[in-house]
Amino acid sequence: MRQSHLFTIPRKESPKDEESLNAKLLIRAGYIHKEMAGVYSYLPLGRRVLEKVMGIIREEMNGIGGQEVSMAALQNPEAWKFTGRFDEGVVDVWFKTRLKNDTELGLAFTHEEPMTAMMRPFIRSYRDLPRAVYQFQTKFRNETRAKSGIMRGREFIMKDLYSFSRSQSDLDMFYDEVALAYDRIFARVGIGERTYKTFASGGVFSKYSHEYQTVCDAGEDTIYIDEESRIAINKEVHTDEVIADLRLDVSKLVEKKSIEVGNIFKLGTKFSEPLNLTYKDEEGAMLPVVMGSYGIGPGRLMGTVVELFSDERGLVWPESIAPFQVHLLSLGADEQAEALYRLLSEAEIEVLYDDRDMRAGEKFAEADLLGLPYRVVVGKKSIETGMAEVKARANTDIEMVSLEDMASFFSARRPRGEKN
Amino acid sequence: MRQSHLFTIPRKESPKDEESLNAKLLIRAGYIHKEMAGVYSYLPLGRRVLEKVMGIIREEMNGIGGQEVSMAALQNPEAWKFTGRFDEGVVDVWFKTRLKNDTELGLAFTHEEPMTAMMRPFIRSYRDLPRAVYQFQTKFRNETRAKSGIMRGREFIMKDLYSFSRSQSDLDMFYDEVALAYDRIFARVGIGERTYKTFASGGVFSKYSHEYQTVCDAGEDTIYIDEESRIAINKEVHTDEVIADLRLDVSKLVEKKSIEVGNIFKLGTKFSEPLNLTYKDEEGAMLPVVMGSYGIGPGRLMGTVVELFSDERGLVWPESIAPFQVHLLSLGADEQAEALYRLLSEAEIEVLYDDRDMRAGEKFAEADLLGLPYRVVVGKKSIETGMAEVKARANTDIEMVSLEDMASFFSARRPRGEKN
Repeated sequence: MRQSHLFTIPRKESPKDEESLNAKLLIRAGYIHKEMAGVYSYLPLGRRVLEKVMGIIREEMNGIGGQEVSMAALQNPEAWKFTGRFDEGVVDVWFKTRLKNDTELGLAFTHEEPMTAMMRPFIRSYRDLPRAVYQFQTKFRNETRAKSGIMRGREFIMKDLYSFSRSQSDLDMFYDEVALAYDRIFARVGIGERTYKTFASGGVFSKYSHEYQTVCDAGEDTIYIDEESRIAINKEVHTDEVIADLRLDVSKLVEKKSIEVGNIFKLGTKFSEPLNLTYKDEEGAMLPVVMGSYGIGPGRLMGTVVELFSDERGLVWPESIAPFQVHLLSLGADEQAEALYRLLSEAEIEVLYDDRDMRAGEKFAEADLLGLPYRVVVGKKSIETGMAEVKARANTDIEMVSLEDMASFFSARRPRGEKN
Repeated sequence: MRQSHLFTIPRKESPKDEESLNAKLLIRAGYIHKEMAGVYSYLPLGRRVLEKVMGIIREEMNGIGGQEVSMAALQNPEAWKFTGRFDEGVVDVWFKTRLKNDTELGLAFTHEEPMTAMMRPFIRSYRDLPRAVYQFQTKFRNETRAKSGIMRGREFIMKDLYSFSRSQSDLDMFYDEVALAYDRIFARVGIGERTYKTFASGGVFSKYSHEYQTVCDAGEDTIYIDEESRIAINKEVHTDEVIADLRLDVSKLVEKKSIEVGNIFKLGTKFSEPLNLTYKDEEGAMLPVVMGSYGIGPGRLMGTVVELFSDERGLVWPESIAPFQVHLLSLGADEQAEALYRLLSEAEIEVLYDDRDMRAGEKFAEADLLGLPYRVVVGKKSIETGMAEVKARANTDIEMVSLEDMASFFSARRPRGEKN
């Protein structure tokens, strides 16, 4: 894409009404636009990052047999009355609204109830199990405090997966498969090493649930890590009993601030019993379906990456989720840069081409702020030498690459999972 | 995809609480799920159709220079107070809700106001124009009556494009480009011949706007068509004055019921003036930006296709938006069918493979109901002859194709715009 065509314009200054680093930087770089506290619109660059994060999650969800749907945000109280969760005394983050006939509706903050109700006609016998159904869908949460940028929004996209099994042991097996898929997702997004599968409080149907916590000073959560075993526990279960149960040594646990980037939860029959989601087993007995739910917020993941990898010059995107792979800068060598832009585009390398008439210093500063993985500078020297400077954003690597080899240079570096 | 894996199960009977053909058939075939009147969730097959419709629209929007964003649904009254449209006396389809601090918010039924406000920092001078920005985003409309299935929802995805030009003549040029892109979209979705660019009432800034109306008995609109010139006018402008203005002959105009599948509108400075979206021209004068807005509802388009092409046996999808190209049925020849499924999948042909143990009659009836473009039957005869029957859903064409030629047979029929 030509930068002269891109409608967003980076700002020199950070917005004054944001506390979080991710919102400050993403707004400054023109990735997102603030509508109000906790409510952001995604501009072209931000939308491209979000789409890539979602693409990685989608691949991994399909890989474990997930089937994608898209459910409504507007919630009929019907399905919720069986669990009591429509009541604002029980759930305090509802946004409610009304139909013309005065029926009160809710805006979904999660989808366990409608999902469970929706599956009823599709699960009849043990032959229809197991199933795994997921969506990327906008959730609405009436948060009192929304100061963490895109990491805690009042409106945000969530990937929510729900599993339907015949037995607790089938659920346990699938739960472990999801855990592995989550490991792959966080690794591919570039935060694998800093992310811990963390023991958190369970429910009636399981001793623990698990959160995926990414160590980061900007986090709202506190976890305790045993670095040797890579076992972590959430503050809420940091008790003598749990520490003994998990055979951890309290003296080895290190306290860290962290961001919850995902969670997986064994629901058991918590929803299937009240909502009457049953199946017939081999003997003809009707049994409640055993469920699990598994969430990841793609926006929060994107915000976490910003918090972790940005530096004083701006954003730094891992190649797997960068809006473009290459930032091509023309510095007084437009003809050569144009030719290279065509070449790279034909090779399906994703290029943002800075074809604007601006000072070199400004172009460099903006390139650093936007944070694409590779900056390629075609300058007057390139006309003589046929070479251009390739600089990595994440480190200090600089390489001279010939213009004609550039397409194969970047093709070899194409992130896994992309086409070709 | 294996049909044994697909979680949806078609029903024998139509739902009793639906009036519209599209909702009846789509629910029966397991494409959508009704949450309440006018609110539907998209199941895997329905989501695939919707994604394909959106993919076609996206390609055409990108083709005319559109840049994709994703704006919030929650609306701060701030941007709306300049036009007065936050007032429910002015706009009666609002869903409203409240923050904890009691601030009233709206759920966007359209995005002119926030889009205009969002563009302010990005349009400074004539050099930043023209721009075209679009999104696929969920709109909420508090409709009193919602009985047309996915053709008129209380919650639905809309593609809304907004254009920003320096002058009326620049807007006129872009408007015509959008009109051509819309023609291509409707042609690719398979309703081009039945869809008329229809004169409708304009506003302060243009004599007329245009609606794209698809002739269909299930439509809520009435249009008058001059078949020879393919000029159509909406009922609201069916006056002597307009007929004279467009040089039409009233005696040649044929009245038809129709569905509004898109609309394009010259906004002029209706929003840029109150919201102060201005640019500096070559002489340094500050002028209001001249805008247009252009909508298509992908769900309504999908519903229109159902209304138009379905028959007594079920859905009939055009190849361009079918959830899968091929419905492969195994009738007692599982080994051969499995091999063919692998072969077609490797060739990236989209196949729904009915690998279930069911009677032939039931499989045929379900295949007709689901409406994929081609049904391929691998039966006991195929074991001897190495051939399978390929039957088109939309007509009576039947062909015998050898199992080994099947991949190239369908590759040659791949819809335009898909990969490869």
